[in-house]
Amino acid sequence: MVKLHGFQKLTLTDQALGRWLNVLQIGKPHAELASLQDALGRILAEDLIAQNALPRFDKSAMDGYALKSAETIGASQSKPAIFQLTDNQEITSKQAKQVWTGNPIPEGANAVVMLEDTQKTGGKLEVWSQLAPSANISKIGEDIKKDDIIAQTGTRLTPYHIGLAAALGYNQLKVAKKPKIGILATGNELAEVGTQLSGSLIYDSNKIMISAVCRELGAETTNFGITKDNIEEIAVVIKKALETQDAVITTGGTSVGGLDLVPDAVNKIGKPGVIVHGVALRPAMPTAVAALDGKPVLILSGNPVAALIGFEVFGRPMVCSMLGMTKTESRPMLKATLARRVTSVLGRKTYVRVCVILKGGEFIAEPVSAKGSGSISTMTQSNGFVIVPENREGVSEGETVVVHMFGSLEVEN
Amino acid sequence: MVKLHGFQKLTLTDQALGRWLNVLQIGKPHAELASLQDALGRILAEDLIAQNALPRFDKSAMDGYALKSAETIGASQSKPAIFQLTDNQEITSKQAKQVWTGNPIPEGANAVVMLEDTQKTGGKLEVWSQLAPSANISKIGEDIKKDDIIAQTGTRLTPYHIGLAAALGYNQLKVAKKPKIGILATGNELAEVGTQLSGSLIYDSNKIMISAVCRELGAETTNFGITKDNIEEIAVVIKKALETQDAVITTGGTSVGGLDLVPDAVNKIGKPGVIVHGVALRPAMPTAVAALDGKPVLILSGNPVAALIGFEVFGRPMVCSMLGMTKTESRPMLKATLARRVTSVLGRKTYVRVCVILKGGEFIAEPVSAKGSGSISTMTQSNGFVIVPENREGVSEGETVVVHMFGSLEVEN
Repeated sequence: MVKLHGFQKLTLTDQALGRWLNVLQIGKPHAELASLQDALGRILAEDLIAQNALPRFDKSAMDGYALKSAETIGASQSKPAIFQLTDNQEITSKQAKQVWTGNPIPEGANAVVMLEDTQKTGGKLEVWSQLAPSANISKIGEDIKKDDIIAQTGTRLTPYHIGLAAALGYNQLKVAKKPKIGILATGNELAEVGTQLSGSLIYDSNKIMISAVCRELGAETTNFGITKDNIEEIAVVIKKALETQDAVITTGGTSVGGLDLVPDAVNKIGKPGVIVHGVALRPAMPTAVAALDGKPVLILSGNPVAALIGFEVFGRPMVCSMLGMTKTESRPMLKATLARRVTSVLGRKTYVRVCVILKGGEFIAEPVSAKGSGSISTMTQSNGFVIVPENREGVSEGETVVVHMFGSLEVEN
Repeated sequence: MVKLHGFQKLTLTDQALGRWLNVLQIGKPHAELASLQDALGRILAEDLIAQNALPRFDKSAMDGYALKSAETIGASQSKPAIFQLTDNQEITSKQAKQVWTGNPIPEGANAVVMLEDTQKTGGKLEVWSQLAPSANISKIGEDIKKDDIIAQTGTRLTPYHIGLAAALGYNQLKVAKKPKIGILATGNELAEVGTQLSGSLIYDSNKIMISAVCRELGAETTNFGITKDNIEEIAVVIKKALETQDAVITTGGTSVGGLDLVPDAVNKIGKPGVIVHGVALRPAMPTAVAALDGKPVLILSGNPVAALIGFEVFGRPMVCSMLGMTKTESRPMLKATLARRVTSVLGRKTYVRVCVILKGGEFIAEPVSAKGSGSISTMTQSNGFVIVPENREGVSEGETVVVHMFGSLEVEN
C-alpha cells in the first residue's frame, strides 16, 4: 500500500529528541590537548582551573610612587611629606620608589601615591596627599584566586578564555576530540557537484550543507557519497560508515514515493534501529532518529530546508552532546516585531524563516516565504528562525517574537 | 616632561576611524579559489551568480500523476476522468504518468494531480478533480533565475550559501585571500607563555588574544614576539613585520611610564606614521592608529581589556575592510533591560561589559564590574558590550539597551 500523506502518528519533537538521547546515552567525549592557538572555538574537556592567582603579586594600579602609607599622615600640598627616591627592590623608612601601572610593589611599601599628587625636586619627592594602607594597589589574587574555576567542562573557548589561559601560564588546553560524522545522501535523482548533469538529475546540495553545519559546531565530517534509492545499497554504506564514524547522518529516502528506504535500511542493519520516524515538525516531518552500535543515526529529509531544520532540531543537540556540552548551544537570539502574519498548524512545531532588520532602532522580522519553500534560497534570504510552538496557530502581525539568528543582522541606517 | 593623565586632546572614535581609513584607502583584497568545503566562513571576492536556473526544469511539487489539465475538465469523485498509465518520457492524449515530488514533468503534460485525488484500478487511473494548467508544478526558474545574484561580493559564506552554490553546480568559489596580520607585544614585564616566570614578569596574553579575534574574522596572523620597552627595538620589529604582512598590530607601549614608545617607533620608521593617538574611548584611550607603506598599523594598549576594545573599535573595521566587506560586520545584537546603573564620562564613548541572561522570557543585562577592570576575567564573565555614546553620562537601571554580543547568551529556565 502506498502511504499518502505520510505518517499515522507524529511524535512531538521534544519527545522524539528525549527518547533518542535516552536510548543513546552519549558519554563523555574523548579529550585531546590543543595549543592555545588551536583551542579557539573548541570545547573544554575539563574544567579550566586557575593554576595561580592573578595578579600573581601585589601590583601598582597607578603610575606613581610606592611608599609606606603611615609616613603620609597629615600630608597635603601646603604641608608635603618628604621622601627620598630609591631604585632598590625594597624600601626603608621615608623612601619612595617610582612605579608604573602593573609594576610589583617593592618590599616595605604598602601604598602608591599618584604622580599627580607629587612633585619631584632634586632627588627628593614631595607627597601632597595622605594615603590609606593598600591605596592604589591591586592585591595578589584580586582578579582570580588560585584554583578558581575559569570555565567549566563543555564551554566553547572564546578569544577571552584563550587570553585568560595565557595569562595563567597555560600553553595548551584539554579539549573534546571532534566527533566524526559520516554523511550520506540518497536519491536516484542526485549527482555529485563537479560532475556533468544530464537529463533530470540535480546536484546534491545536502551533503555539503549538512557537513558545513556539523563543522560549524565543531565536528569532523566524512563524505560517504550518494546512493541510489535501494535499501540494500543504503544499508551497505551506513554499515561501512559506522565502522569508522561516531555518528551517521543521511539525507533523502525518508518517504520517497511513499517508501521509507533509509529507515528500512537502518532497521535491517540491527537493533534498536529507528526510534522515532515522523515528527510533529514543519518542515521536516519525515525526519527519523535511530541508533545502531550505540551510535546516533540521524535520517533527514531530502528537501534541503527540511534537512536543515531536522538537523537544527535533532542534529544540533546530538553534536553538542557528543562534544560534552551540558546543554545544546543556543543560537544568538533577539526579540523582534513580526512584520506580517505567519501561519502554522496546531499540533506541529513550526520553524518560520524570517529576515531581521534593525531599522530606526527597532528589530523588525520579515517572514521570508517563497513558492518553493524547500528552496535553499529562502535560507540565504533569511537570517533567523521564529519557532512557533505546537499550541499556537500562527502568529499575528505586530507580535513580538523571539528570533534564533543563523545569519548576520541587516542594519539599516 | 612626564605626561600625567595622557593626552592634551582626545579624538572622537568615529573621527579617528574615518581619518585612518581615509588615509589607508584599503583596496579590494586579492582573491583565491576555495573548494565549497573550504569556503565556509570565507568572504566572497566576487558576486555569486546563478549559472543556471533553479529548478533547472519544470518539476512536480507533489506525489501524483502528470497529465494534460484540459482532459480533467468537469472531473469529480462521482464523475472521474479516466487516464491510461504510461512510463514513457512523453505523454499523449488521455495518458498519465506517475511522478514523485521533484520529478521532471514529462513532455506533453502540464499539470499534476495529487495521489489523494486519484484511484488506480487495473492499468487505469481515475482522476477526481479538475486541474488548472501548471497545477502542482514548480516551474523552471521559480526559485532562482539564471544570472540572479545569489550573494554579493563581501558576503561571509554560511552553510546555506554553500548549499545553494552546490545546487547551482559550483564546486569552488572565489573568496578573499586572508589578510596577513603581524602581531607584536611590547613590555619589559612580559614573558612568553610556556616559559618559566621569574620575579615580576607576567605572561603576555595580548598577542594570542588579539590573534584569536583576528582569526575569528578571517585573517591569518603571525606572532612577532615580545620586544622590550625600547623605541629602536620596536621599530626594527615593526619594519620587519611590514616586509611580509598586510598590517601590523602592537600591544603595549602606548603610554608606558608616560612615554609613547610604539607611536614614536612608528613615526621613526616613516610617513605618514601615527594618524591619531589618544581617542575619546573608555577603556582604550591610549589607542593609536597609524599607516606605513600604505599598510595599517594599529597600536593597542597593553591592558588586555583596553587592547580588546581598541581592536573592536579600530581593528574590526580594518580587518573587515581588508576582506572586502562593504561595511563592518556587526556582532549579534539584542535589546535587554539594564539590571543596574552604569556610569560613563560625558564626551567619551564607553564600552560597558554586561552578561545577558534570558530569564522568564526577558533579556536582562547585568553589568560586569571588577576591581581590576583591566582583567580579562571580566570578558569571560560577560557576553556582550553596551556602547554608551559620547553624549550620555551613564545609563539608568531599567533602561532598554542594545547589547552587542561576543559570547553565548545565558538561558535560564
